[in-house]
Amino acid sequence: MLKVAICGGSGYTGAELLRILAGHPLVSVTAVTSEQSAGKRVTDLFPHLINYSGSVFEPLDREKLLLKADLFFLALPHAASQEAVNFFVENGKKTVDLSADFRLRDAAVYEEWYKTKHNFTETLKKGVYGLPELYREQIKKASLIANPGCYPTSAILGLTPALREGLIDPETIIVDSKSGASGAGRKADVAFAYCEVNEGFKAYGIAVHRHTPEIEQELSAVAGKKLTINFTPHLVPMDRGIVSTMYAKLKKDEDTASILSKYRAAYENEPFVNVLDEGKYPNAKNVRGSNYCEIGLKVNKRTNTLIVVSAIDNLVKGASGQAVHNMNLMMGFEETTALKGPALYP
Amino acid sequence: MLKVAICGGSGYTGAELLRILAGHPLVSVTAVTSEQSAGKRVTDLFPHLINYSGSVFEPLDREKLLLKADLFFLALPHAASQEAVNFFVENGKKTVDLSADFRLRDAAVYEEWYKTKHNFTETLKKGVYGLPELYREQIKKASLIANPGCYPTSAILGLTPALREGLIDPETIIVDSKSGASGAGRKADVAFAYCEVNEGFKAYGIAVHRHTPEIEQELSAVAGKKLTINFTPHLVPMDRGIVSTMYAKLKKDEDTASILSKYRAAYENEPFVNVLDEGKYPNAKNVRGSNYCEIGLKVNKRTNTLIVVSAIDNLVKGASGQAVHNMNLMMGFEETTALKGPALYP
Amino acid sequence: MLKVAICGGSGYTGAELLRILAGHPLVSVTAVTSEQSAGKRVTDLFPHLINYSGSVFEPLDREKLLLKADLFFLALPHAASQEAVNFFVENGKKTVDLSADFRLRDAAVYEEWYKTKHNFTETLKKGVYGLPELYREQIKKASLIANPGCYPTSAILGLTPALREGLIDPETIIVDSKSGASGAGRKADVAFAYCEVNEGFKAYGIAVHRHTPEIEQELSAVAGKKLTINFTPHLVPMDRGIVSTMYAKLKKDEDTASILSKYRAAYENEPFVNVLDEGKYPNAKNVRGSNYCEIGLKVNKRTNTLIVVSAIDNLVKGASGQAVHNMNLMMGFEETTALKGPALYP
Amino acid sequence: MLKVAICGGSGYTGAELLRILAGHPLVSVTAVTSEQSAGKRVTDLFPHLINYSGSVFEPLDREKLLLKADLFFLALPHAASQEAVNFFVENGKKTVDLSADFRLRDAAVYEEWYKTKHNFTETLKKGVYGLPELYREQIKKASLIANPGCYPTSAILGLTPALREGLIDPETIIVDSKSGASGAGRKADVAFAYCEVNEGFKAYGIAVHRHTPEIEQELSAVAGKKLTINFTPHLVPMDRGIVSTMYAKLKKDEDTASILSKYRAAYENEPFVNVLDEGKYPNAKNVRGSNYCEIGLKVNKRTNTLIVVSAIDNLVKGASGQAVHNMNLMMGFEETTALKGPALYP
Repeated sequence: MLKVAICGGSGYTGAELLRILAGHPLVSVTAVTSEQSAGKRVTDLFPHLINYSGSVFEPLDREKLLLKADLFFLALPHAASQEAVNFFVENGKKTVDLSADFRLRDAAVYEEWYKTKHNFTETLKKGVYGLPELYREQIKKASLIANPGCYPTSAILGLTPALREGLIDPETIIVDSKSGASGAGRKADVAFAYCEVNEGFKAYGIAVHRHTPEIEQELSAVAGKKLTINFTPHLVPMDRGIVSTMYAKLKKDEDTASILSKYRAAYENEPFVNVLDEGKYPNAKNVRGSNYCEIGLKVNKRTNTLIVVSAIDNLVKGASGQAVHNMNLMMGFEETTALKGPALYP
Repeated sequence: MLKVAICGGSGYTGAELLRILAGHPLVSVTAVTSEQSAGKRVTDLFPHLINYSGSVFEPLDREKLLLKADLFFLALPHAASQEAVNFFVENGKKTVDLSADFRLRDAAVYEEWYKTKHNFTETLKKGVYGLPELYREQIKKASLIANPGCYPTSAILGLTPALREGLIDPETIIVDSKSGASGAGRKADVAFAYCEVNEGFKAYGIAVHRHTPEIEQELSAVAGKKLTINFTPHLVPMDRGIVSTMYAKLKKDEDTASILSKYRAAYENEPFVNVLDEGKYPNAKNVRGSNYCEIGLKVNKRTNTLIVVSAIDNLVKGASGQAVHNMNLMMGFEETTALKGPALYP
Repeated sequence: MLKVAICGGSGYTGAELLRILAGHPLVSVTAVTSEQSAGKRVTDLFPHLINYSGSVFEPLDREKLLLKADLFFLALPHAASQEAVNFFVENGKKTVDLSADFRLRDAAVYEEWYKTKHNFTETLKKGVYGLPELYREQIKKASLIANPGCYPTSAILGLTPALREGLIDPETIIVDSKSGASGAGRKADVAFAYCEVNEGFKAYGIAVHRHTPEIEQELSAVAGKKLTINFTPHLVPMDRGIVSTMYAKLKKDEDTASILSKYRAAYENEPFVNVLDEGKYPNAKNVRGSNYCEIGLKVNKRTNTLIVVSAIDNLVKGASGQAVHNMNLMMGFEETTALKGPALYP
Repeated sequence: MLKVAICGGSGYTGAELLRILAGHPLVSVTAVTSEQSAGKRVTDLFPHLINYSGSVFEPLDREKLLLKADLFFLALPHAASQEAVNFFVENGKKTVDLSADFRLRDAAVYEEWYKTKHNFTETLKKGVYGLPELYREQIKKASLIANPGCYPTSAILGLTPALREGLIDPETIIVDSKSGASGAGRKADVAFAYCEVNEGFKAYGIAVHRHTPEIEQELSAVAGKKLTINFTPHLVPMDRGIVSTMYAKLKKDEDTASILSKYRAAYENEPFVNVLDEGKYPNAKNVRGSNYCEIGLKVNKRTNTLIVVSAIDNLVKGASGQAVHNMNLMMGFEETTALKGPALYP
């Protein structure tokens, strides 16, 4: 049994790691940390995690944790994660970081968007961007995984085949994304109170959201040239799920069926990407609680535009499920272990 | 007191007309029709309409209705509305048609998108597109109002100032819209059952939605040249509200503040358009149950793109509220009568 | 124009007072206070209150407010309200207090349930419990109204006719109530975050909720003898609305129709109580945003039990609407002014 | 591998059986029937069931199915299930019937409440009421399981320890239950359309709901004497979950802690019943998607009443999860197989 620790276990991604790992036959969770909730039982915060009725949150005591676990999931706030990641990696522990701290390969870009200094640029070089559909082989050999952001996961999976095949003009990409409220995390904040979110729908962070450079970094790598995108996130009155609707001008005349077949080929061996039939489009509800990504697309002949829609569960494929996927790959486990469950519907 | 009849009163737009007109001091609703519910009390279908506890649905007997009312609201299904509209107009009655039948000035376009023949092209010529912000003077003199669609209202209000000022490239317009479930009407359909819509989010009708030519018609008129757009509607798990996020490339370097001031100037005298301060964006919840349209916008300097967001209540500004606004204008009433109520929040 | 001030305007009941008063032809809101938001515009917190675009929150400076208004609505937290109420009443201002501070006629009961001392027992004696269906005449003459709690309003209206007619055994009363999340107020609290409330349903405060003695006080007065009840509140994933399901053993054999006719007689002249036909039951949705109370009932012959269900909007009939109703009565205005609007549905 | 067939696979309970069985290592689903959807793929109706991408609905051809499977789950409508159940049982197949047809041991009671004749009273005698907490040993030996209703599961688990210990007066039981919308099934019905259910809350079927005799049958068996109850179901705007709040007078003075310890003892060895600590109450959200039942309780000393609250997922513990639990017991599998997953939260 692999011993794993979860640092930052009192948020939704931490709880989701616990939920998923409860079904993993090769893993034992040996520590869960939380500063604010240290000393409380896991079930005090999360009564649904009945499988962890004996577990208690502990403070993040790094030296102590070294002895307790062999692989570390870090679900800490951005910036706060840097130092802990560096520590575990330097001590030879496999680490999956769910924060943004090691996702941007260029520390200057990180510092510009996150308004904080990156203090571990050597460790940064060791990080592998943990999107298995793009970096499976590197992940297998990695010691540090920078687990992708939720919006970037949906956008990169949605656009990669079209970009790689050179079907679209990289200058024209628009990513219009919609997320459930769990994306904001578990916190006391009037803006995310039930009565503020329910029966509402709004855009936020237009042109300034921090996931922008992450999407651009990966799509640029795919396109083989630096590109900038328009990215607009929105808040949907639902718990989980991200749907991204993406637009780009086609470089030449293409039809829906032929592009769909290219997408199908691109994702043929991917266990968690489901390219839908023509005329069908993704629904956040279809992937709720699962690690799957649904992709549908349509060519608008009147405007010569490709429209791609992708759906994921932001807490699973967009965070904790993908983290477990990365762990499976790093450890040489069957990569879908604990991740094959279908969505909860309705 | 103006006597008005509502033809097709058993759907959400019919019920919303009744709700709004309950607060109108100059109007008396003298007939409400429904074929399926004829003989039932209005409160049997809509217990909330307690102000109409004495009203009973009647069949749409056109000759009989002529004697009962002086102004007609038609909330009938598309195609079914044509003949009734023509009848009332030919008999000299002021008519506000909430269907799509008289919105598209070119009958051929109507026939292409609605797959049905237009049999009253002479009457079609008399119709005025009932968006007061664009056609106030014509509406005042009109006998037939083609009340705008919900999505088109949000898109046209959001893009008109930018297009009119020549700020954006008309070839690059994308309208990504999100609507609450009441937009689908009141009907028995598994696809709109609670458990299918709740906790889900999806795109539908990509590149083929019938509101596309309506948006194009009006934006083309504003731009002074024929344009085509990308329009993608989505279904949001909420009762009411449309938020449209719109993208277009800027023709020259502009900043958010200067475009906002142009929008503010454009809507300065409009009682129902609220241009938000820089950094604030519309929320469907802010206009729920009201006739207001919120507009916010941002220039993305990195991509030279204007992003405009608008929010309306699809049943009010997107349907019945706008219909009452049109009635007020046609009748010479103070135009905001019965429409000034703030949104219901939360 | 009556000049009114709202003390404590940054919560949901304050905002709801503003919404309702926006439609009141005889009232002008001359001050809105908030300590935390002093200096901010009303529309900074509540963008939907567009009718108040010129209003700014001010601190609660009592002396200053005396000069500004003739009637005061206080939507302050419990305990915090006592002193301000006393001040305005002593200075001869008509006052409607939406807190619980003046609802319980026995200061000892208040102190037991609210764990705080009552410092103004003389003023307490002047207070009239502001349920117009029970105390209309007293309200007309009152200087201080203790506006009823939301749960108590639903319970008292639901049980009064049965108790008054001696139909039920007062020892057997159970009030099982369900409320939307706005009942908890507008606050930063993880327990009321969207993702915690949505898709959940729970009981809370079983046997200890502070509305218990308020319900008991009023039902005891109706029954003419002291009674105790079981009261269980629950949290429903919706913004607004309270539905109370009430049970009591029948003293003798009765049927649904005869009890319904007694309820209808009891509420015959009440503008805001709607007794439903046999076989129909209230729905929170039918009264959303309105001042109406729906009541339905059924006799269970198998168990000799009367089951009554009532529905109100907790922010309107359960708070701000009833407060305006009380103001109308105190001022001699037509009592339904600004309150006749039907519910927003859907 | 046990070959199982699901008859009636196009509803929510059928889909939920498929979801749960996808994680069962000892079971292979060899047939799924649906008359209306025969010929369609399972993923055409349920895109989330990606694990069944090769499965196609077939008509319920009983002879053919006999050859395909060794155990049958029947998720057919009430009355329609009778004949099929009888056929499979007579042909020696283990059968789990999720309809109500074999739950009521007295055919006369069935006929009175379901208004339909019971044609298979001999088979009825063979049925075992499939609540493992009450009938584990009988289930192990059964050939026919009458899988309990959702409301009855929540009520019987909540009241059994108190009744068995003689703590409460059986004449005073009230069961006030609240269910998510999936309890109504997957169907085209305006009453369950999104906009009708969302933001609403209502009681229905007061004193006449068909689950009443089922609850009474089982509680009578526990109490050792025939009892009648008050049962009121309500509709909650959420997908899944039932919370039942139950009231009964205590026979003698008891406190919360001592009754809780009796409940804990009663359910000590039950893998799926979770008795909460004093002061904590169940939440539908805590069991969403899981087979667990949460129970909390409180003694109201002022009224000498026991209040018990239970929460289950109506589609899992209230239907398909319990059905799989029953299958596990019948087959001698470890009884929690495929059922230990924690709830999906948020």
